[in-house]
Amino acid sequence: MSGRLAVIGLGPGDPALLTPQAAASLAAATEVFGYGRYLARIPPRAGQRRHPSDNREEDARARAALALAETGAAVAIVSGGDAGVFGMAAAVFEAIEFGPPAWHALEVEVIPGISALLAVAARLGAPLGHDFCAISLSDNLKPWTTVTRRLIAAAGAGFVIALYNPASRARPWQLGAALALLRACLPGTTPVVFATAVTRPDERIALATLATADAALADMRTLVLIGSEATRRIERPAGTPWLYTPRHAP
Amino acid sequence: MSGRLAVIGLGPGDPALLTPQAAASLAAATEVFGYGRYLARIPPRAGQRRHPSDNREEDARARAALALAETGAAVAIVSGGDAGVFGMAAAVFEAIEFGPPAWHALEVEVIPGISALLAVAARLGAPLGHDFCAISLSDNLKPWTTVTRRLIAAAGAGFVIALYNPASRARPWQLGAALALLRACLPGTTPVVFATAVTRPDERIALATLATADAALADMRTLVLIGSEATRRIERPAGTPWLYTPRHAP
Repeated sequence: MSGRLAVIGLGPGDPALLTPQAAASLAAATEVFGYGRYLARIPPRAGQRRHPSDNREEDARARAALALAETGAAVAIVSGGDAGVFGMAAAVFEAIEFGPPAWHALEVEVIPGISALLAVAARLGAPLGHDFCAISLSDNLKPWTTVTRRLIAAAGAGFVIALYNPASRARPWQLGAALALLRACLPGTTPVVFATAVTRPDERIALATLATADAALADMRTLVLIGSEATRRIERPAGTPWLYTPRHAP
Repeated sequence: MSGRLAVIGLGPGDPALLTPQAAASLAAATEVFGYGRYLARIPPRAGQRRHPSDNREEDARARAALALAETGAAVAIVSGGDAGVFGMAAAVFEAIEFGPPAWHALEVEVIPGISALLAVAARLGAPLGHDFCAISLSDNLKPWTTVTRRLIAAAGAGFVIALYNPASRARPWQLGAALALLRACLPGTTPVVFATAVTRPDERIALATLATADAALADMRTLVLIGSEATRRIERPAGTPWLYTPRHAP
């Protein structure tokens, strides 16, 4: 009996940004695994079971979903944003690689979603108009020296930088340290954005510069965007200024 | 009279990956601008005018759309993938910054889309499971030395690298040069993927390694993905191997 696992990106939160493919895949699943906060976004459906788990239990969640898919069930795992960008997809494939051989024969489909990166950029204008990178500040999963090496390389090479997982109760100092490091590499006027809960009712966006950026503005729902030296700010008669990074680079 | 411009990401091509927000925004527009090939993807609608233009006419297209929005029309500009990722959004904001003051008062909404990067990653498994970057190989818009500097920085820092605009008739040698440069920075076993027209009927995916990668596999519809040293390949009893980059980094 061949099981099926869908790894689904729910997008940033606004239901109008959930793709029809993701909606159809969710509707076809009889078992849905995910972080409780993401499961709560999905409208309940008769005959569909929910398997909520905590934020930090990604490995156990992936294995539980795969084990159930192996029995022939139609299983889905959900992530906020895109499951492939610091979401559940990598945890699933890691579990497959080191799991029982039967898991290699499962049908696994990854359904892309609007990542926080794209949703935040769209809100601001076009800050990703040129070359960019995404870095997770979580040092649960890598040494802090790897993070600092990447920040220095990215700033030096002129990438716009998106920082995922900038802060949490368990990671209180990392963003402050990252901003301090970037201040040594980039002009103080470089735009910095703290974008929290984007497209959700409690959305909050704060524009700053590297000189004035306050790490306390970030929590675990925040994506922090650091411009490059080329990123420009357009003031408007009313409303938040726009940010964009020109396609032409020096 | 206050005009409105929506800058809409159509996603990679599969209509099931067009977000409801993008579909609603398209339906509300009376004038739609874009590269002809992208406009052809949108179902015709009575009372809606199309303004197709060539691939290379981004600046003129942005200005024409803004000028029409200024008259009070409901205007949309479309991009494939996400308009903010090497799409039309940066061209629009550049036109606004250097255009007439009235354009600063326009209502401009950017509607995110599933970028090629996310669609390709989803097809492959989870190659973006860790820190990554996106680089355009187009040297119309920046000196080739900027491209090489960024490639070296990204490879050295351990980013997975997505190469946009890898090849076209006007840019025949750049991808070969980029691959040669990366061979000097990364092991020959590093996975390389040529993903063309992903989610469209003529989708074509070729898995290679840095040692064997042949630049001739890319055309202007191709996204090239270069793994990091950490990216892993999972062989399967049947079907294309999966690629993923573990969340843990050394």
